[in-house]
Amino acid sequence: MKVKVLQNILDANDQIANKNLKTLDRHKVLALNIMSSPGAGKTSLILGTIAKLKDKVKIAVIEGDIASTIDADRISNEGVPVVQINTGGSCHLDANMLSNALDSLELKDIELLLIENVGNLVCPAEFRLGEHKRVALLSIPEGDDKPHKYPLMFTESEVIIINKIDLLPLLDFDFAAFRRAVTGLNPEVKLFQISSKTGEGFNEWISWLKAELRSL
Amino acid sequence: MKVKVLQNILDANDQIANKNLKTLDRHKVLALNIMSSPGAGKTSLILGTIAKLKDKVKIAVIEGDIASTIDADRISNEGVPVVQINTGGSCHLDANMLSNALDSLELKDIELLLIENVGNLVCPAEFRLGEHKRVALLSIPEGDDKPHKYPLMFTESEVIIINKIDLLPLLDFDFAAFRRAVTGLNPEVKLFQISSKTGEGFNEWISWLKAELRSL
Repeated sequence: MKVKVLQNILDANDQIANKNLKTLDRHKVLALNIMSSPGAGKTSLILGTIAKLKDKVKIAVIEGDIASTIDADRISNEGVPVVQINTGGSCHLDANMLSNALDSLELKDIELLLIENVGNLVCPAEFRLGEHKRVALLSIPEGDDKPHKYPLMFTESEVIIINKIDLLPLLDFDFAAFRRAVTGLNPEVKLFQISSKTGEGFNEWISWLKAELRSL
Repeated sequence: MKVKVLQNILDANDQIANKNLKTLDRHKVLALNIMSSPGAGKTSLILGTIAKLKDKVKIAVIEGDIASTIDADRISNEGVPVVQINTGGSCHLDANMLSNALDSLELKDIELLLIENVGNLVCPAEFRLGEHKRVALLSIPEGDDKPHKYPLMFTESEVIIINKIDLLPLLDFDFAAFRRAVTGLNPEVKLFQISSKTGEGFNEWISWLKAELRSL
């Protein structure tokens, strides 16, 4: 019975997600759903992306948090429109939350929408929002075994970014093993390695983003 | 309606949790529910605790994972009884899962039961298992702002352990701000600072554990 309830929720969610995607396509807004554990660096990735692109691309951000506006405040300082969603306890965003957030954005003035999900490597992967691409972030200190333990996130995401590679000399992280695990689950995945602290690897990520924007 | 379903699930969970706690008390087994984000160091904390205590205290471990037996295999190598729970997608352990796991342990031969929850800073805090203490682990790379963003975990836990303090010289982590946030939510909380890599801070944690074992 529990499964059935969940199934109904997921079906309803997917219907709203499809509607969101149509709305985004109509306005030619590329939407990325950025997911990771707490502290892996979603906000830093967004801030780094804004720094590189804001003179060329019209960006907006949706911040998902259980509580607080810490991240939204940081991004708002960059002069980019931000909508905060406080989920009030829920461990993930859902399509209805995105739908409400889209209503409060001027979509005609936006080319790139970066959606920061709640910090959680599990539940966000279960709920499509209507995004074009799902971007999973994993940071070096979390360890290379995470695709084995949290397979859905690594299976469902079109893009996986490894962050905090500046810490590689200090920590054990087996890139070859990680890549094997990820491509075993998800052969088509696009992998990036970055450091939001040093800026390393951002050029490849930004090039990919620009190509996605052109192809919309 | 969604909330009502959740409420029923939580009520049913609490009834089983109460039963689990009675079972543990009858056998004088101290049970800790160890919770954190993925990669914060739950397994390393358990391995470090086993190394310090296994000659004096009879320990068993329950490993909760969505998938894989990586952590259970590591712990089993230490000669300690381990039960693996694979939640099959669920983002947290619940009291019924613990009840089943307890059935497969010889409780009369156990003094300390370390339960490793699924890596998730959100949902595990919502489901009591019947544990004596809830131990939340946060690692330095995750950042000092997490109590603001994930308040339930820091409110519900009796013990909070900050791990990976060996990385403090390299990363920004404001201990005073963290402590203020945590004690604001949870004035009675017991705070430890450790490094599972260097062993720093383990003596205080082990002393606390021994006192808890004596008081059972």
